[in-house]
Amino acid sequence: MNLKEETLIREYQFRGRIINLRTDTVKLPNGAEAGREVVEHPGGVCVAPLTGAGELLFVRQYRYPYEEVVLELPAGKRDRKNEEPLSCGKRELLEETGATAENYTFLGKVYPTPGFCDEVIYLYLATGLSFGEAQPDEDEFVEVERIPLERAVDMVMNNEITDAKTQIAILKTARLLKQ
Amino acid sequence: MNLKEETLIREYQFRGRIINLRTDTVKLPNGAEAGREVVEHPGGVCVAPLTGAGELLFVRQYRYPYEEVVLELPAGKRDRKNEEPLSCGKRELLEETGATAENYTFLGKVYPTPGFCDEVIYLYLATGLSFGEAQPDEDEFVEVERIPLERAVDMVMNNEITDAKTQIAILKTARLLKQ
Repeated sequence: MNLKEETLIREYQFRGRIINLRTDTVKLPNGAEAGREVVEHPGGVCVAPLTGAGELLFVRQYRYPYEEVVLELPAGKRDRKNEEPLSCGKRELLEETGATAENYTFLGKVYPTPGFCDEVIYLYLATGLSFGEAQPDEDEFVEVERIPLERAVDMVMNNEITDAKTQIAILKTARLLKQ
Repeated sequence: MNLKEETLIREYQFRGRIINLRTDTVKLPNGAEAGREVVEHPGGVCVAPLTGAGELLFVRQYRYPYEEVVLELPAGKRDRKNEEPLSCGKRELLEETGATAENYTFLGKVYPTPGFCDEVIYLYLATGLSFGEAQPDEDEFVEVERIPLERAVDMVMNNEITDAKTQIAILKTARLLKQ
């Protein structure tokens, strides 16, 4: 079955600092027309920094859309659509936690919400950590926290960790390390 | 540390069929002001339908933002912000696959992309399946596919499955069932 939708009209409704929003008109496989709301996002990178003691470094930060503090692995947006994901991950890890890592293992990519958004998040496991000073952006307020991997897995299973990329990176790391 | 951001101005830039977009001005913990781009979404439900033979039911559908066919577990948007998640899950499972389930186990909730969107996805494991006719929406084109749970886990680990909710539901199901 051909599932492809063909773009007929592409119309920008909003161009922002982080996201753009388009309303497109498409031709469906059956020939009918339909509207599509699309958020454009530059994509991001999420790093699971694992210490020699088997602890993951997390950040707690206020997530304005939910009006709550959310526990996440260090992550950030790509500076531009084609920024090399690993460079972005190294920068975000350093900025948010002060850590640098000797080894990075690619853990796959994530489509967070494919119904309306083109964001892709690249995941890495980072080991061989050494620590300096965190270098948060001027308007970035985060608290760093260390949690043993095993406990982090329990927190995913118990629904204490809600962030999608964080859940995936933890569960994949645990499975890779056979925990 | 107080991490809360206080809303000073809330301004709608777009109101759509599925999402709205606001640009808000907030007061940061240090008293400075900053802009926030927020996508409002009604939230959704994702169901991992597991047959007695240990196979998961998937749907393949064209995801316009990525311009590709994506393999996902059955899922859909809530009709309205306060629709009961389980009712929504049952409806989407029936519409997309024709299946109904005797037992639903809550697998937790997911914040797909907390930086700019308020979407919450509720996950369920569904067992005790019986099958009728799929009832897709008029503009919904999906192909149903059965994949053994163990193979699905490999596909997550090998980066053949990219959708966030699908990765999480598979890895949580496997861990619950000790696979």
